Amino acid sequence: MSKVAPYEWDSEGNLQINDAQLGKGWWNYLFNDQAQLKIDPYGQGQSWSREPRINAWGRGRRECWIRFANGRTWSPSGWPQRHPEASWACRHAPMWTRIESRLGDLEVHWRVFLPREGPHEIWTVRLINHGSSPLALALTHCLFQPTAGFMGSRSNWDAERRLLWRHDFPHHAGWDEYEPLSKLANYLYLRPLTDPHSWAVSDPDYFGSAMPAEVPDGVLQGFPSREAALDPSCAATQNELTLGGGESKAYHFIAGAAVSLDQAAGACALLKDDQAIEDALAERVEEWEETEKRLWIETPDPQINRYVNRWAKKEIVWMSRLWRNGITTPWRNELQDSMGYSLFDEPQARPFLDTVTAAQTKDGHLKVWNTRPGEKPNHPLVNYRHNDGSIWLLICQCMALRQSGDRTLMERPIAWGDGREARLLDHLSAALEESAADRGDHGLVSMHDGDWTDPLNGPGRLGRGGSGWATMALAYGARLLQPLAITAGDESLARRCLELHAELTRTVQKQLWAEDRFAYAIDDEGKRFGDQADDRVWLNAQSWGILSGIATREQIPLIRKTVDSRLMTPCGPVLIDPMFTGWDPQVGRLSLKVPGSTENGSVYCHAAAFWAAALAEIGAADEALDILKRVLPEHPENPCEECGQPPIWQHNAWFGDRNSPHFGRTSGTLGTGTVPWAVLTIVEKLLGVEASLEGLRVGGALPQGWAGSKVTRWFGGESETVVRS
Amino acid sequence: MSKVAPYEWDSEGNLQINDAQLGKGWWNYLFNDQAQLKIDPYGQGQSWSREPRINAWGRGRRECWIRFANGRTWSPSGWPQRHPEASWACRHAPMWTRIESRLGDLEVHWRVFLPREGPHEIWTVRLINHGSSPLALALTHCLFQPTAGFMGSRSNWDAERRLLWRHDFPHHAGWDEYEPLSKLANYLYLRPLTDPHSWAVSDPDYFGSAMPAEVPDGVLQGFPSREAALDPSCAATQNELTLGGGESKAYHFIAGAAVSLDQAAGACALLKDDQAIEDALAERVEEWEETEKRLWIETPDPQINRYVNRWAKKEIVWMSRLWRNGITTPWRNELQDSMGYSLFDEPQARPFLDTVTAAQTKDGHLKVWNTRPGEKPNHPLVNYRHNDGSIWLLICQCMALRQSGDRTLMERPIAWGDGREARLLDHLSAALEESAADRGDHGLVSMHDGDWTDPLNGPGRLGRGGSGWATMALAYGARLLQPLAITAGDESLARRCLELHAELTRTVQKQLWAEDRFAYAIDDEGKRFGDQADDRVWLNAQSWGILSGIATREQIPLIRKTVDSRLMTPCGPVLIDPMFTGWDPQVGRLSLKVPGSTENGSVYCHAAAFWAAALAEIGAADEALDILKRVLPEHPENPCEECGQPPIWQHNAWFGDRNSPHFGRTSGTLGTGTVPWAVLTIVEKLLGVEASLEGLRVGGALPQGWAGSKVTRWFGGESETVVRS
Repeated sequence: MSKVAPYEWDSEGNLQINDAQLGKGWWNYLFNDQAQLKIDPYGQGQSWSREPRINAWGRGRRECWIRFANGRTWSPSGWPQRHPEASWACRHAPMWTRIESRLGDLEVHWRVFLPREGPHEIWTVRLINHGSSPLALALTHCLFQPTAGFMGSRSNWDAERRLLWRHDFPHHAGWDEYEPLSKLANYLYLRPLTDPHSWAVSDPDYFGSAMPAEVPDGVLQGFPSREAALDPSCAATQNELTLGGGESKAYHFIAGAAVSLDQAAGACALLKDDQAIEDALAERVEEWEETEKRLWIETPDPQINRYVNRWAKKEIVWMSRLWRNGITTPWRNELQDSMGYSLFDEPQARPFLDTVTAAQTKDGHLKVWNTRPGEKPNHPLVNYRHNDGSIWLLICQCMALRQSGDRTLMERPIAWGDGREARLLDHLSAALEESAADRGDHGLVSMHDGDWTDPLNGPGRLGRGGSGWATMALAYGARLLQPLAITAGDESLARRCLELHAELTRTVQKQLWAEDRFAYAIDDEGKRFGDQADDRVWLNAQSWGILSGIATREQIPLIRKTVDSRLMTPCGPVLIDPMFTGWDPQVGRLSLKVPGSTENGSVYCHAAAFWAAALAEIGAADEALDILKRVLPEHPENPCEECGQPPIWQHNAWFGDRNSPHFGRTSGTLGTGTVPWAVLTIVEKLLGVEASLEGLRVGGALPQGWAGSKVTRWFGGESETVVRS
Repeated sequence: MSKVAPYEWDSEGNLQINDAQLGKGWWNYLFNDQAQLKIDPYGQGQSWSREPRINAWGRGRRECWIRFANGRTWSPSGWPQRHPEASWACRHAPMWTRIESRLGDLEVHWRVFLPREGPHEIWTVRLINHGSSPLALALTHCLFQPTAGFMGSRSNWDAERRLLWRHDFPHHAGWDEYEPLSKLANYLYLRPLTDPHSWAVSDPDYFGSAMPAEVPDGVLQGFPSREAALDPSCAATQNELTLGGGESKAYHFIAGAAVSLDQAAGACALLKDDQAIEDALAERVEEWEETEKRLWIETPDPQINRYVNRWAKKEIVWMSRLWRNGITTPWRNELQDSMGYSLFDEPQARPFLDTVTAAQTKDGHLKVWNTRPGEKPNHPLVNYRHNDGSIWLLICQCMALRQSGDRTLMERPIAWGDGREARLLDHLSAALEESAADRGDHGLVSMHDGDWTDPLNGPGRLGRGGSGWATMALAYGARLLQPLAITAGDESLARRCLELHAELTRTVQKQLWAEDRFAYAIDDEGKRFGDQADDRVWLNAQSWGILSGIATREQIPLIRKTVDSRLMTPCGPVLIDPMFTGWDPQVGRLSLKVPGSTENGSVYCHAAAFWAAALAEIGAADEALDILKRVLPEHPENPCEECGQPPIWQHNAWFGDRNSPHFGRTSGTLGTGTVPWAVLTIVEKLLGVEASLEGLRVGGALPQGWAGSKVTRWFGGESETVVRS
């Protein structure tokens, strides 16, 4: 008998988790344009509706219990307790998750998906009797709802609409606020397609006298089926049934949020029976398969294939379409995310890119911090000035324009944030000039309250400090814009790009080159850092020094040696070395971050992908691939079972404190610019299938380990296949 | 064998809970001036430090586990799971809580208290081997810490200071904010007086692979004793020990918050061993006994005695000294709370009363909403104008002045909120005139954004509506001030009080009397409500109509009949009838509250106490006592075991929806103006021992059921005893 693998890939490329100990971090995420669900292998995790505002409709907790005729109980999902005799597995697919468990003759599948439309999650419990004798069972199903607002909630069974509801009118300040607040999704509901024998709508009625580590009273005895007020609320049902030998039965539950009970009932009516629900799921799966086909690669590396063909694409769609489910987010994220979207679906990506572009003001400036329409800013950074809005606009639009293969897009008018409109090309030219003009005496782009390195709020707070990274990124943007300007016939703009690039190159070389590395920046007092004086190495200054074309042929080997010796780890390069261990007024907030975390010296995957892109740019394909594989999940030197990262999405960072027992552990967070950059680098640089306004270009050497490859890309409205060997 | 009572009073008057099913709502609260702890019968509940800002240092969760030599485990507190063979009881005293449990030969006491000084909770686990054979045990103790801020936390063992620490620097916006934020209590610590054999500082290290309803891995196997970063944090220790036959051992744990680890270590050093800890507890107990003695009543009713002598007093001290642990609170609460404090400790209450008085501006206005110094306002109501600040200042200062027995207090200078200072009597006169002047054409005090009924933000939002309650309360204030003015020799003020009272009486009679009740108010459009037209009855308009002396001898029986027939329930009178069941623009936010909750028709204990006070005022002592007993905990028609209210503190409200299965359930919230009013009514009206600037006055009839009584009060610096029979 062979040992069961902790996890494996099933025949459809879905993740099958066999070892329940892999834990809560191995969650999947499901979404449509109106809702999102994060779901772990035990059926736990938060769900949000996004319309009219982002609002959780669950507490992240769900229970499913079986009570047998002898009174014994079993939670098939393994939560909150495992049954020592039950088998267990969880399957995460792009569009659904299913927990599969069996105890004796009884098999239970607990599955969830989100339909294409509507803010609800659909759960199915399928009970299968593998024996020949009938089984008398009681099935309990419960979704726990979020804490109500200041004024508490009510909940009850609606006998007409056959659903459990909870109503919560949040605390508010003024008489005038009733009208807008009444239009929010203040009702939560759970519609069981089969009427329950008993139900509960509050935690006290669900648990009774049970302690947290005991089986809830209601599971054992049935529920009191009575209204609730002011208590923590849930939506629990119990169905009693007899399952004949060989028989199978399914119970469906639709849970979500609505502005009114009629709206809830209307949404549920579309999912009226088993067939309607299976059809709704099939529709999602087919739709997803169509998306996958738009960019399909075949390399000898199954990890890379899985990443590009399926999981990276899913993360990009989620990031772009749901703006990472954020309330206040930096445009830099949205721009890179939709740039990534354009790699396989430029028409779908275009509206997101254009939305950002339309926020640019006529002076070329793009305020980095954006709050989703209808929401209130949810953190104070929104009021601060970061210097990279227009730079990312320039970079990402140039890249996405290449993906469109459509030169007329540059001529399309897009509004300015402060009125009128101009050609997209004019927007990009304005972005270039805004940053070019925002330079200090040192010639570097001003730092203000931070650049890509968000928490770097020390060096430029007085308005004088200059950012090496932003200056390099502007040079990179100029480099990307120049050929587009030529295609558009704007020779003057093309020339300007070249001139600016040359000027920025001279400046960076003069101000920042420091023997074996580029320094990162110059602060308000004119003091440089990230050089020999403080002996700190900043990865981004090296990556972008190369990407931008500023680093000379002589400097590149020195830079690579510095990165390799100072920053490289088995998990990829750390972002800075050494980490800050306490408040440093020169860099500010960054120095207060936990050493080894995010900008303070983690292996920040996004930045590692920049480094891989830089290596690919100079033809170091094998090294670029090696870096990417170390920051993507599933590297043998930091296996998923140990680092905590499930292999179905890209995390933000590995913990980077090399002296900590937690070095290499995943940040566990979804949504990162790593994904578009990794896909871009793999497809265009390592596989050498590059989009341009002149068509697909194929070239460059494949990584040494790749004997051959096949790439199918949608480009210019058609599917093109490139086979290399 | 007699059945064990679910709860009982032990020989020291402490609450002994025998039935673990009484639940989490049966919590005690412990506090000193710097900290507060809410603690349930299983050792769960939130703890807060108050300096420099209000900040939780725990997640409210604690575990204590025993592992026996055979590998079996037991949680003596019964949380998260009960042991079917273990005995269990919990004892709540004013200054400590102790859980007492026994399994076989092993008895475990788990006790907590707060020392007089310092933001920490002190836990003691006492293990007693009642058998003759030695027991080999492993004791696990864990405090779970709050979620860290945006930037995560670090935690570790400090080998020098012998404590577990967690550091969290909260997310912040600007470079300039480092300085103030670094002065907050960003360190949490747990100091075990006995070094542990192993420890954990993160949830993952504590639980390992265990599911929520399983015994944590660390309890079974010991902990990894390693630093943590970015994970949810805890402070867990494990000690291995052998307890000889008949032997007893104690383990102490000090947990709290500090600005630095040195500060933490310094605070712990004062509690260095078993003796120091027992001394610190004894000091608290003695101090509390001194407080109790300042007002001691003996009536034939043990419930009333317990309430006044112990539990009400404790709640008043907590409310007054800790401002109900609120960040933004209405001064109306603080004024009534410290008025209650003055009933047994006027010198201690005085600074709190004066602090509020010093916020009054020269025009006599006292803005109701106050935010604790050093905090930011934590809800939007702070920006709205409620009309009752100066009215409560007038009422509560007059009442407290009587308690002082010191006529010179009226002459003492107190600053105005906007500069200079004036005699306290001038402050009160200004308060009277400010409200007297703030009246509309109808002659009623303007409603603005609400009166005592906070969420009544509809009727007066345009500035024209008038409040019946506020007008009556102003008349009541004038009535209280008048004799003080005479004592002070200010005849003109005394005359003004009488004239204003007469004028307000005429106005209320003309505008609000409605056949069998007083209407509540007139809205901005001049439309009256709370009369026959809307057929709603508002309790407060009736109570204050009587209390103020406005109601005529003929009206009082009509009013009482209306209250009895429309509002009375076995749990006391509801606040309004009928409840609002949806948005009513006339009254505003009140109508959105869950029907039967708080101002929307609960049995609001504070308002019920007003009604009792009104009945006592007119000599209906038996009826007043009956009302009080129905709203205080422990009424046989709504027993504690059913309503969920523990008999050691006063809740805010009983759920008032008479059609709901939850009618009569406690709101479960601590801190209410009920307490000062109940104590005032019991001592001064029912027992007839009334303080005045001329000395204690004794008079009035005792309730019929009370054959005799004894009251000992501190008054004017001396203890006086009044025996009546």
